Amino acid sequence: MSKYDVIIIGGGPAGLTAGLYTARGRLKSLLIEKMVIGGQIIMTELVENFPGFPDGISGFDLTELIHKQATKYGLETIMAEVTGVEIRGNEKLVRTTSGDFTTRALIIASGSERTKLEAPGETEFTGKGVSYCATCDGAFFKDKTVAVVGGGNVAVSEALHLTRFAERVYLIHRRDQLRATRILQERVLGDPKVKVLWDSVVDKISGSDFVREIAIRQVKTGEVKLLPIDGVFVAIGFKPETEYLKDLLQLDETGHIITDGKMETNVPGVFAAGDIRYNSGRQAICAAGDGATAAIYVERYLTG
Amino acid sequence: MSKYDVIIIGGGPAGLTAGLYTARGRLKSLLIEKMVIGGQIIMTELVENFPGFPDGISGFDLTELIHKQATKYGLETIMAEVTGVEIRGNEKLVRTTSGDFTTRALIIASGSERTKLEAPGETEFTGKGVSYCATCDGAFFKDKTVAVVGGGNVAVSEALHLTRFAERVYLIHRRDQLRATRILQERVLGDPKVKVLWDSVVDKISGSDFVREIAIRQVKTGEVKLLPIDGVFVAIGFKPETEYLKDLLQLDETGHIITDGKMETNVPGVFAAGDIRYNSGRQAICAAGDGATAAIYVERYLTG
Repeated sequence: MSKYDVIIIGGGPAGLTAGLYTARGRLKSLLIEKMVIGGQIIMTELVENFPGFPDGISGFDLTELIHKQATKYGLETIMAEVTGVEIRGNEKLVRTTSGDFTTRALIIASGSERTKLEAPGETEFTGKGVSYCATCDGAFFKDKTVAVVGGGNVAVSEALHLTRFAERVYLIHRRDQLRATRILQERVLGDPKVKVLWDSVVDKISGSDFVREIAIRQVKTGEVKLLPIDGVFVAIGFKPETEYLKDLLQLDETGHIITDGKMETNVPGVFAAGDIRYNSGRQAICAAGDGATAAIYVERYLTG
Repeated sequence: MSKYDVIIIGGGPAGLTAGLYTARGRLKSLLIEKMVIGGQIIMTELVENFPGFPDGISGFDLTELIHKQATKYGLETIMAEVTGVEIRGNEKLVRTTSGDFTTRALIIASGSERTKLEAPGETEFTGKGVSYCATCDGAFFKDKTVAVVGGGNVAVSEALHLTRFAERVYLIHRRDQLRATRILQERVLGDPKVKVLWDSVVDKISGSDFVREIAIRQVKTGEVKLLPIDGVFVAIGFKPETEYLKDLLQLDETGHIITDGKMETNVPGVFAAGDIRYNSGRQAICAAGDGATAAIYVERYLTG
């Protein structure tokens, strides 16, 4: 069974940057990714806010560059799904669909996806008007009409954020009241650019090259209306894949991993970085910073 | 008096990234830098570990790119020294050598320099063998002979880190025992690559294009020896410029600003990011991540 100084689970900006740091620091490092190197951000055609790229860069290109950089310093990568983690004293056993590995330190950086609407057209138009991050994509919708789906703090914050760009913001919520904190509710309900559509769900997203309209169903009356729209921001929750870790690590109520400022979890030698950790900035640059921080403290953990 | 949504003090990776995010988020944003845009990292000829640049990039070029990117979205920049900060309810007054400004939120990102040796040759050879960061520059000293100056946790950790690259590591300490924690002391004293020079200080650094030797004085005997060397890592402390903030913000015993995970200080609406905050990863990528996180929470603070 292959032994590593550090194993990194997840190949997005957090995991890749952690691997760049640990490999460059001459720790024997393995990155395990189950789907595709780059993570969620490869769906983003133009990342405008990763510092260092004034003309923007595609998420695919950005993460390919970081992977190349980490590989140059010796990071090993395998494509496999992690099926379990066991702590055996100072040694951690990582079970995967391509065999088992042991490691002295572990960095979990496998992300946290936004919960999908599961509406027809959603997947087809992702990156073409359908977005899961207003901070990332809001600037592309100057003077446009957009909709935010959801009723919690994230949805309301995103609706308010979007008022700085868009001409009109619909907030579509399936209930008759918002879950967001009082002050956010007051702000959004008092904003002349925002119109809340209560008791409403998105039945379908359609368009041609880009989103053009959404079908909205009033859940109490069953009435369906078509709404012309340029963008749809889905903000109905997050879904980190931490089920297999729940008996091992402290998670918050949404399943995100709790860490301290050094990115260390409640288990010594097990770290988390990026969107999978609670309180994450949910930005590629924040994830990359987390990854580097985790790597630095992995090294201190291994050094004693 | 000009009013801003957010003022950022410091134009290194943390401040520039914060400005990129706040300006792109359409907050009226001013960055104040006293010396030169880019901060300490502009002294670094080749940054190998900023993710996205597999061939490396100079610190100057990297920060110039980020400044260009932030300016594109509307970040204003002035060159001035901040002389004081006053909190007036929700408004913060920032006094500078180029006039006073008010702002709703403040991000302090003015860095923390390593304490200098103040030895002849130190400034001349900075970036040419003299380094203040082993994590950053260790990889350039493969199979070389290096010296680390200091006796605390940082110095000892850096000496141990350098053993993975260098053939020989001298640890030069002015006292007859180390201040580092017991376990780090045991490690470093037991490492065959490390030789500790006790009761010793660096009198002079010399070379031609690059560092070639250092003059070491034994403080008890006064004896001076020349030591052939390829690199000198200075690790005798940090000096954040926070004197003017000490009655306002919670600082740790070394003068670094204490923040929570959202980068917020004990004063609502005042944030800190990068090397100036305690527990910083002291890496450009960590600082950039901090800056983005601070910007995200500044926006939430301003939104309510």
